[in-house]
Amino acid sequence: VNINISANPSASTHLSLDSLAATGVWVPALTPINADLYPDAHRYVTHVKWLLEQGCHGIVVFGSTGEANSFSVDERRALLEALLEAGIPASKLMAGTGCCALTDSVTLTSHAAVNGCDKVLVLPPFYYKAVSDEGIYRHYAEIIERVGDPKLKILLYHFPKLSGVPISLDLIERLLGSYPDNIAGIKDSSGDWNNTRALLARFPGMAVFPGTETFLLDGLENGAAGCISATVNVNANAIRNVYDGYLQQSSHTAEQQAQINSVRRVIEKTPLVPTLKKIIARMRQDPEWLRMRPPFVTHAPELTDAELTELTDAGFVLPGAHTA
Amino acid sequence: VNINISANPSASTHLSLDSLAATGVWVPALTPINADLYPDAHRYVTHVKWLLEQGCHGIVVFGSTGEANSFSVDERRALLEALLEAGIPASKLMAGTGCCALTDSVTLTSHAAVNGCDKVLVLPPFYYKAVSDEGIYRHYAEIIERVGDPKLKILLYHFPKLSGVPISLDLIERLLGSYPDNIAGIKDSSGDWNNTRALLARFPGMAVFPGTETFLLDGLENGAAGCISATVNVNANAIRNVYDGYLQQSSHTAEQQAQINSVRRVIEKTPLVPTLKKIIARMRQDPEWLRMRPPFVTHAPELTDAELTELTDAGFVLPGAHTA
Repeated sequence: VNINISANPSASTHLSLDSLAATGVWVPALTPINADLYPDAHRYVTHVKWLLEQGCHGIVVFGSTGEANSFSVDERRALLEALLEAGIPASKLMAGTGCCALTDSVTLTSHAAVNGCDKVLVLPPFYYKAVSDEGIYRHYAEIIERVGDPKLKILLYHFPKLSGVPISLDLIERLLGSYPDNIAGIKDSSGDWNNTRALLARFPGMAVFPGTETFLLDGLENGAAGCISATVNVNANAIRNVYDGYLQQSSHTAEQQAQINSVRRVIEKTPLVPTLKKIIARMRQDPEWLRMRPPFVTHAPELTDAELTELTDAGFVLPGAHTA
Repeated sequence: VNINISANPSASTHLSLDSLAATGVWVPALTPINADLYPDAHRYVTHVKWLLEQGCHGIVVFGSTGEANSFSVDERRALLEALLEAGIPASKLMAGTGCCALTDSVTLTSHAAVNGCDKVLVLPPFYYKAVSDEGIYRHYAEIIERVGDPKLKILLYHFPKLSGVPISLDLIERLLGSYPDNIAGIKDSSGDWNNTRALLARFPGMAVFPGTETFLLDGLENGAAGCISATVNVNANAIRNVYDGYLQQSSHTAEQQAQINSVRRVIEKTPLVPTLKKIIARMRQDPEWLRMRPPFVTHAPELTDAELTELTDAGFVLPGAHTA
């Protein structure tokens, strides 16, 4: 999809960026898995530190790319704690806390908030389909009421292709009406620019993050907060350059956007999580990174030279591994 | 859908029923919810005892009708324990233990097995869509290997409309090849008789349960184990009569099957869980039964006289409440 929208970055747009709960290039970090299929906290901390060095403004701890729902509540709490214990500031983290069970979502959201991680990305409960907006509203309302932290900033997570439970604009309006201090944003992983644009038009005070860097520049020009995207795991630097270029009104930004788009197109031809893990494994010369937890296959094949060449031809630069 | 298949109950069919891991009319029990939206163990035990008195052969503890995925691992363990502590034999229970997270599925399956509840109904991990059979295979294989109980009887749970993750016949064949003693059956909630028939033809040694009583008689005549159906919560007696009538080669069975079909048609015009809770609330004169956990609305409206009349006109008899 090619999108051409006239660029008009105004002072007021920049001002509104400052007022959002989160802005910039955020990455749902991949979760490394050990031989017993448990999360590997050491490699996770290393990867997250490296992503921040590569220019990410922040880290989503357990998005879909991080295989969030493949881990138990205890496993998710332990990994968030590992990051905090490693000295990563809570302000740079956004915890994925949305589960099917209200009580699990409350447990994870409370845990994040108590640990100073006020920003949470919350999927709707995703087992039952065709549920009413009233039911989804009650789920989010119960989380907010039970956690009871006025500082809590919820980013709604709209990913209908995986969750099967879309978050409608009317639902957002109702939640904002009830909890204006807690409903702070949305990750729009619909892949549908029309939906992102409708969100931006209707909710100018919310931090709207497209779920792909493909919409980064167009989004920023229309008031988006940045992007939260799986491919930032391997292409953070180039994506950050687009964000900075927009702020600096650089004349190269459109060209840089085209470049990150062409890399994204190559990567998203294949299933994202295994492909991203393959690239990281290659970059770090570390086959441990090829592992995933079921329902993904437990071992991705190694990235072939041909696959790397295709990426490089699209403008991808394999980043140097962090050796911490 | 009207299905007419020539009845030919043979001695060998009865023999094969005896060899299955579970047979008969099983009910995924509704879960009553208290004012704080937690499971109400007292009402749950009462309801389960009453269902057994009404003629159910067994109880699925946490199927989709029981709002399984809306509860945490701890809540699910506690309710299973409440049933066992109330003296309900583990042999009459089948625990729903399939979660998105492998570790949660292992925890719940182990807990059931350790408590003597060898029969478990296991959803595939249902967040990621379009995953490979290899990934789903690994998930089930890891559960079996990690629980490590040779007595474990897994019933696969095929409910593609809700899970979004179908269980293919080839996957079942592979699982049966690897774990012939542990893969014991399937609940087929596809609502697609052709799929049920294909399962029966290809896997004659498995306990195949259609997910609706609509297919009870046709299923039995083709080697099915019985049925596991939401509507058994309110119509157990009549459904049991069809099962017994088939075994006794009664001449009234087809007529009784038509009767339970017409009741089912009325109930399934509306969302199942709230409608079933409304009927139970009316039967028991207990509005506490109207509650559900989000993402369902937290209060179903009461069953109206008009709704009850429509059910009664279809042949439904409001059962008497158990007063234990």
